[in-house]
Amino acid sequence: MSQAVGDDPGPGGRPGRRSRRPRRSVSAVPAQPLPSQARHRIGPVDAIDAERIEAIHLASLDVLARTGIEFLHPEARRLLGDAGAEVDELRVRFDPDLVTEAVALAPSRFTWHGRVPQRNVEIGGDFVANSCVGSTPMYVTLDGERRSGDTEGYRDFLRLTQMLTSIHVLGGYPVEPIDLDPAVRHLHCAYDAHTLTDLPYNVYSLGRQRNVDGIEMVRIARGVDDATLDREPSLWTVINANSPLRFDGPMLAGILEMSARNQIVCITPFTLAGAMAPITLAGALVQQNAEALAGIVLTQVVRPGSPVIYGGFTSNVDMRSGSPAFGTPEYAKAALIGGQLARRYGLPYRSSNVSAANAVDAQAGYESMWALWGAVMGGANLIMHGAGWMEGGLHASYDKMVIDADLLHMVTNFLDPVDASDAELADAVAAIDEVGPGGHFFATEHTQARYTTEFHQPLISDWRNWESWTEAGRPEAKVRANRLARDLLAAYSPPPIDDAIEAELRDYVDRRVAEGGAGGA
Amino acid sequence: MSQAVGDDPGPGGRPGRRSRRPRRSVSAVPAQPLPSQARHRIGPVDAIDAERIEAIHLASLDVLARTGIEFLHPEARRLLGDAGAEVDELRVRFDPDLVTEAVALAPSRFTWHGRVPQRNVEIGGDFVANSCVGSTPMYVTLDGERRSGDTEGYRDFLRLTQMLTSIHVLGGYPVEPIDLDPAVRHLHCAYDAHTLTDLPYNVYSLGRQRNVDGIEMVRIARGVDDATLDREPSLWTVINANSPLRFDGPMLAGILEMSARNQIVCITPFTLAGAMAPITLAGALVQQNAEALAGIVLTQVVRPGSPVIYGGFTSNVDMRSGSPAFGTPEYAKAALIGGQLARRYGLPYRSSNVSAANAVDAQAGYESMWALWGAVMGGANLIMHGAGWMEGGLHASYDKMVIDADLLHMVTNFLDPVDASDAELADAVAAIDEVGPGGHFFATEHTQARYTTEFHQPLISDWRNWESWTEAGRPEAKVRANRLARDLLAAYSPPPIDDAIEAELRDYVDRRVAEGGAGGA
Repeated sequence: MSQAVGDDPGPGGRPGRRSRRPRRSVSAVPAQPLPSQARHRIGPVDAIDAERIEAIHLASLDVLARTGIEFLHPEARRLLGDAGAEVDELRVRFDPDLVTEAVALAPSRFTWHGRVPQRNVEIGGDFVANSCVGSTPMYVTLDGERRSGDTEGYRDFLRLTQMLTSIHVLGGYPVEPIDLDPAVRHLHCAYDAHTLTDLPYNVYSLGRQRNVDGIEMVRIARGVDDATLDREPSLWTVINANSPLRFDGPMLAGILEMSARNQIVCITPFTLAGAMAPITLAGALVQQNAEALAGIVLTQVVRPGSPVIYGGFTSNVDMRSGSPAFGTPEYAKAALIGGQLARRYGLPYRSSNVSAANAVDAQAGYESMWALWGAVMGGANLIMHGAGWMEGGLHASYDKMVIDADLLHMVTNFLDPVDASDAELADAVAAIDEVGPGGHFFATEHTQARYTTEFHQPLISDWRNWESWTEAGRPEAKVRANRLARDLLAAYSPPPIDDAIEAELRDYVDRRVAEGGAGGA
Repeated sequence: MSQAVGDDPGPGGRPGRRSRRPRRSVSAVPAQPLPSQARHRIGPVDAIDAERIEAIHLASLDVLARTGIEFLHPEARRLLGDAGAEVDELRVRFDPDLVTEAVALAPSRFTWHGRVPQRNVEIGGDFVANSCVGSTPMYVTLDGERRSGDTEGYRDFLRLTQMLTSIHVLGGYPVEPIDLDPAVRHLHCAYDAHTLTDLPYNVYSLGRQRNVDGIEMVRIARGVDDATLDREPSLWTVINANSPLRFDGPMLAGILEMSARNQIVCITPFTLAGAMAPITLAGALVQQNAEALAGIVLTQVVRPGSPVIYGGFTSNVDMRSGSPAFGTPEYAKAALIGGQLARRYGLPYRSSNVSAANAVDAQAGYESMWALWGAVMGGANLIMHGAGWMEGGLHASYDKMVIDADLLHMVTNFLDPVDASDAELADAVAAIDEVGPGGHFFATEHTQARYTTEFHQPLISDWRNWESWTEAGRPEAKVRANRLARDLLAAYSPPPIDDAIEAELRDYVDRRVAEGGAGGA
């Protein structure tokens, strides 16, 4: 299938991805490939030529210089003004040189440190990292009931994420546990995430205190000191522009706090063409790019060299209803061009696995695949909402999470290079000669040596013939996914954590809850 | 959205594809985009580098020179021997120079003539043509019953194909009407295809007489003389290698008859890695390429310059059950490399939209999308089985046909270039400046001028919110597709045909049926 590509191991000492991956067998559930990151060995694809990318870049600089961006945080405005931007009340206008010089300071690749080194993830270069669904207000239970997010659902999505080896990071709360007081929600959620999983984690930028708590808790979870944390990015936050052309106060506080500590900021404008952005893809991308650059400049003004990710989320709206569409061909093209822009700046690129479908049906399948097509061929380094995102982000689905996790394994397989080495071709030619006209290859040594490992064995796809499938009750993909989700949750056990670290996390949460959490922040 | 690309109209005088297509409204059913062909304006993607393509090419030449291919037809062997190949009983071995010189004679682009000029289709260059599903033995009715192919199903699939504007050609019988005597089936099927649709048509190479009948009927249907038909490719046939390394007699008779009349031959080895081909993708592709080249050589020996298509169909088998898998990441990679090989030879490339799913569920959606990803990024000029292929080709589905037809529209949209011209960027920058921070774009002139035409309005995707969708009974994609299939069939009316031509077709069929059809052939 592929050559060994054992070069360039992640800093956690993981071996590089190998062609025939050992599979981790979890009791009672099918074996999955090991949780290694895919590499972009095919693509990326340019949707428009480099000269038009430059034109979009220049149009964005024009927007930044002439129209400018509102920054609803005085400290952010002060820092930008000191760096040379023109501050006019809330509006900040950027000289093109300031933008290009600041953006050039950001790293093209860094390591996102996990609670344990085995979970370190590379962001940038040709690496691909996948996150679970994040930030949905609702979820659909295993019994098919759609309900508001709660602690039970939040925890089960964490458990399922931990069990799915194609998910590398937590991209946010898979579902928002709105049964928890907002002032202390972030504390309980962080505790659960650091104990129910060992995956790299996030913080929501909803006021400075939440960032401070998130940073302190990831430091405790990792068992490192402040200086180490400042050297090693270990926490990420998504900063959405309040499109068009505005960053709100809490989001800016997030940049100030996170970038100052060398933690990961992902600037993601929410540019829906025809609603919060111009209706043409090119126009929406100009705005996406202007807003992204403005946020990225601030990260580099706060701390030159701090890790920042270029996020693309441009999609179209259904012009009949005004509701956002996701997983469309327009979305896929915008994702390709977003990748071109990120590469133009030498920045890691975030895209997403999205769908507007209400049901886990054929639409959910093809919309997710359009989104993945755009992300993968667009060279995305981080596939946010990689598994479980439904209904335009309004609900998380266990069934869809399992299906998506398998699609992410397939993406890894797709990106795995084909071994067409001289040695492999010589072996194949010999096998063809051995079998000859009209024969078959099942029994050849060439086949026998490879048949258990050569192909991805999907978790969900049902390849039984019609008769066997009918005898089994004609289960559709969502039914098989539901069964596997239940089996994975039943087989779940929490990852090891040092007792002292768990106690310190517990103490931190208890103390901060007693203090009122972020109630006053 | 995209610039006008009005250059290079098809020879039928159709205007080139335009950015904002007029939509053809059929009574009682949603409007669809006009049936124009997509162009490869994005991609293709190379899955391996050019030097490894050359290595696969050389390995194929090695197979052809050393192991050779069985040709189970004496006339084919005689012609190849006369051309310089080494004939040893059934086995034919090819000198590399013979292969490369013969393949170089084949055209890189040609027009496939329809019954009416508006239906002419360009094959090759950067054009994309889509066919309906072909050759399934079973079908699933609109009521969900899976049954053997029959005339009723055959005709309804033809009618539905005619109504779906993203399907350009008939790639075979959508379902085989096995209620018809095999000796005369091809006559009745051709009559139905030429009268129930006006789409370019096919013939199955199952013995010389069927090719002769097919060619004569397409000549009658087009109302042209023999000399015109010999100049204008109007009929196609798929020639499957009987892999490994064998072409059977009826298939070779098809090449002899079709190529002699300058009609279209698509050589498609059926190379399932691990079964009829080596288990590695590279090995299976070496064999695919050797078999394809052997068939292509014969077409050019029969008639230099005759139209031939390089067909790729390499997939993997489920090594647990031995059943073929379709729409896998391995399949998509093989499709990319197949495209590289076809471009290496300057030949039009055929790929397919395939799925192994039994149900029109999420698996059907994502498997088709893997296949389309491979076909589209692989630069396919003909997407065979473009709409309706299920269960690894064992059944055709009306519901899936409608969903796939919409996916093919989405492919066209995806390949439509993004207009990032200076004029469009200036308009967008002006709109961004006009709206400013915190505004919205719904009411801008930039939006109002474009909102009805800017985005693809899908036929099937349901973007209603959960509440509206629930009020509507929570229909899944297959339910919506089933309704649309029924509506389209209800709205169907046959395309115009000259009475004299229809009578001549009828007379031909009646006469040939009275003669026993292909009973003695």
